[in-house]
Amino acid sequence: MADIRDIYEHIEAHLDESMALLADLVRQPSVSAQDMGFDKAPGLVKDALDSVGLNAEIVPVPNDGHPSVFGSTSGEGEHTLLFYTHYDVQPAEPLELWDSEPFEPSRRDGRIYGRGTSDDKGNIVARLAAIRAFNEVRGGLPCNLKFFVEGEEEIGSRNLRGLIETRGEEFKADACIWEGGGRNASDDPFIYLGLKGVLTIGMSVKKLHGDAHSSYAPILPSASWRLLQALNSIKDPSDDRCLIPGFYDDIRPATDAENTALATLPDEAIEWKEVFGVESFVGGVGGEDLRRKLLFEPSANINGFESGYNGPGMKTVLPAEAKAKMDFRLVPDMRPEDIFQKLRAHLDRQGFEDIELEYTAGVNPARTPIESPWTRLVAETAEEIYGRKPVIAPTMAGTGPMYEFGVLLGMPIATSGVDHPSHKIHAPNENITEEDFLYGAKHAALIMQRFGERGLDE
Amino acid sequence: MADIRDIYEHIEAHLDESMALLADLVRQPSVSAQDMGFDKAPGLVKDALDSVGLNAEIVPVPNDGHPSVFGSTSGEGEHTLLFYTHYDVQPAEPLELWDSEPFEPSRRDGRIYGRGTSDDKGNIVARLAAIRAFNEVRGGLPCNLKFFVEGEEEIGSRNLRGLIETRGEEFKADACIWEGGGRNASDDPFIYLGLKGVLTIGMSVKKLHGDAHSSYAPILPSASWRLLQALNSIKDPSDDRCLIPGFYDDIRPATDAENTALATLPDEAIEWKEVFGVESFVGGVGGEDLRRKLLFEPSANINGFESGYNGPGMKTVLPAEAKAKMDFRLVPDMRPEDIFQKLRAHLDRQGFEDIELEYTAGVNPARTPIESPWTRLVAETAEEIYGRKPVIAPTMAGTGPMYEFGVLLGMPIATSGVDHPSHKIHAPNENITEEDFLYGAKHAALIMQRFGERGLDE
Repeated sequence: MADIRDIYEHIEAHLDESMALLADLVRQPSVSAQDMGFDKAPGLVKDALDSVGLNAEIVPVPNDGHPSVFGSTSGEGEHTLLFYTHYDVQPAEPLELWDSEPFEPSRRDGRIYGRGTSDDKGNIVARLAAIRAFNEVRGGLPCNLKFFVEGEEEIGSRNLRGLIETRGEEFKADACIWEGGGRNASDDPFIYLGLKGVLTIGMSVKKLHGDAHSSYAPILPSASWRLLQALNSIKDPSDDRCLIPGFYDDIRPATDAENTALATLPDEAIEWKEVFGVESFVGGVGGEDLRRKLLFEPSANINGFESGYNGPGMKTVLPAEAKAKMDFRLVPDMRPEDIFQKLRAHLDRQGFEDIELEYTAGVNPARTPIESPWTRLVAETAEEIYGRKPVIAPTMAGTGPMYEFGVLLGMPIATSGVDHPSHKIHAPNENITEEDFLYGAKHAALIMQRFGERGLDE
Repeated sequence: MADIRDIYEHIEAHLDESMALLADLVRQPSVSAQDMGFDKAPGLVKDALDSVGLNAEIVPVPNDGHPSVFGSTSGEGEHTLLFYTHYDVQPAEPLELWDSEPFEPSRRDGRIYGRGTSDDKGNIVARLAAIRAFNEVRGGLPCNLKFFVEGEEEIGSRNLRGLIETRGEEFKADACIWEGGGRNASDDPFIYLGLKGVLTIGMSVKKLHGDAHSSYAPILPSASWRLLQALNSIKDPSDDRCLIPGFYDDIRPATDAENTALATLPDEAIEWKEVFGVESFVGGVGGEDLRRKLLFEPSANINGFESGYNGPGMKTVLPAEAKAKMDFRLVPDMRPEDIFQKLRAHLDRQGFEDIELEYTAGVNPARTPIESPWTRLVAETAEEIYGRKPVIAPTMAGTGPMYEFGVLLGMPIATSGVDHPSHKIHAPNENITEEDFLYGAKHAALIMQRFGERGLDE
């Protein structure tokens, strides 16, 4: 095995340049939910890929969605690796909870703060740092490389399926490193092999031409009451189970290997209690049951609801309209279209035909088998980089378009990256540390090196 | 009975001067919800009262609220009449729906447009026109007179109770004419004798330190679900009844006279269906039942609720907090403090101790008995002025500080004024017609004359 210390040294020596590139990317908003910044963001990402020789292209997606950026280059040997990432970010709101501007990177307490510093612009830049190091130190890459940067991951990759169906073969590789990975709260390297699916919906109801004076409340229908009664029909407060008939029908039981992996995952209950400020979890569960609930069970969650007057003071209004957003996290083999139809049928049966539903996004769940040689390569290299045995999770609780790459394009997928729970991704004060950035960049480099040497051989 | 045609003639002859005074008052904004215009408005009102010999005083209210203006003068005999009015107005918003500037009176189509032209500056000026007529034609008033002009009626009269407790005796009279009255949609004179009370509350719940990624939904408590489950415990969707134990306990049954009056009220179902865009009312009620529900029943209404992300697109967040505002309209003898305590106890019993409640405002309901001689005097005089039998409503569905004057100061209260549904009070393009102004001014004059002659004798 070739020595790779020269590559690590290059990554470390050029850390300030990497941080400057990350700052440039963060400064350019790219909030897919708010359609913000997509005039400039794709070009900036393309330039970054081109700067390390990735021959990048801005790839239009169907339905005038936010484009992807795709680059590729040849390296030594016959093995081709795909890095999947995304340049879109979550909305920065609530803005008042940020201690510095979300789109103006700010360094303090040994961290760099800003929306996307970790998820996922930090991972993009870390991998580019590894690629640049190989180019500048060795004059080329140790394997063929493809680099896919999506622009709609945070809104459910709504146009990715269409893109994969038309141009998927171009993005196909022998194996894939997913958008992020890194360390868990115990600072152990952490690899996940699957993601949940998701169905996101909008709900709305309108009962009056316009808001009425609330003195009419005894006789006029209320959109607010109506919406909350409909929502209430979806979940049983006593056991937190979803009440949509057939909701649980298509769940595939976990394999023995998945259950074994679940048992060996660290118990993060104490950290979660601290991070989220809770004394106990839903249903009072703990230990392996807590992890099973989080990773192997679906959920019905409210993202937000709104109706009427919510400003300062009082306004005695009877709101004409009410709306809500929900997401349902799905586990194999649940399908978002199916759950949407079951929800519609459930509401109709309960008499809530007046509640309008909008299907806003759907993503299928997917898992790479724990026994895959790709899992082994990524785990071994993680142990070398972090000096600790990695923790391997059969799936994360989150969602991403793993199904499109893993199932439709047929690649094994594992993770590596700059992440750490303290980075607060999706939340106010998202941040990254230089330490995690360097771990992620070096692991990307070692994966490329080792994959170039042996591909998917055992 | 003395002839009063000389007074009517003076009112008609000086109509232009009355309209000029009304324009001056409307031109000066006095929006209590927005704290707008209270540097100059009280002085302008005082000057108007002084100009007809009312010896007015700007009366500070507790908590640095917007002051009231109070004037009084002696007239013939021993009977004292109180006119209650208010000079504050509703916000003009939405401004884009006005066809002329809300604070620049504009005459077109036989109407004068502007915020407050009817509610309540139109009523102030109409009564002043009657007082001026007596002074200038007869050299004095036919009864003793007190004139109270509140500055916070449109924001729930929040400091009136404190003022009444300290200086109420000064404002006390033998009978009271309320802020407005006039004609209904059928052009019949319309008198109401009561107002509902109201309890307004804020509800909030916080379950996490901060918003979480929604992938944690299977294990983390949800403020959104929690709030809507708590709200849902307050009302039975099947019959729209409030589920707070004891909520209906203190309702005083309607008297036979009130029920008889209810039966004779016009059926406005068709207009309401059109205005609000509904096909039917809550519980499918109509006719007398519809009016009974609107006027004699309390309500539990949601003014607004809010949680999580409600912007464009989706955000897969699990909100840390959720909040709502409610108002409960109360009928005699419900009390806002009592309902608030019963709600708290109900939520605690249901296990919702984590839901925080805030008492934001409370107004007691009040009704003057239909059998009161004051009702008879106001109704008889209305018939003389309008040439039609008046419609008498035992109560309105709305709320106002009638309890403070009617119960705490012990006065019978009825209404008279310049109002008509076409005046669009509280809405864009509020207006008044000269015809309604003259009706209101003449009715005020005839009430003063008749009350001076016979007081509350039958």
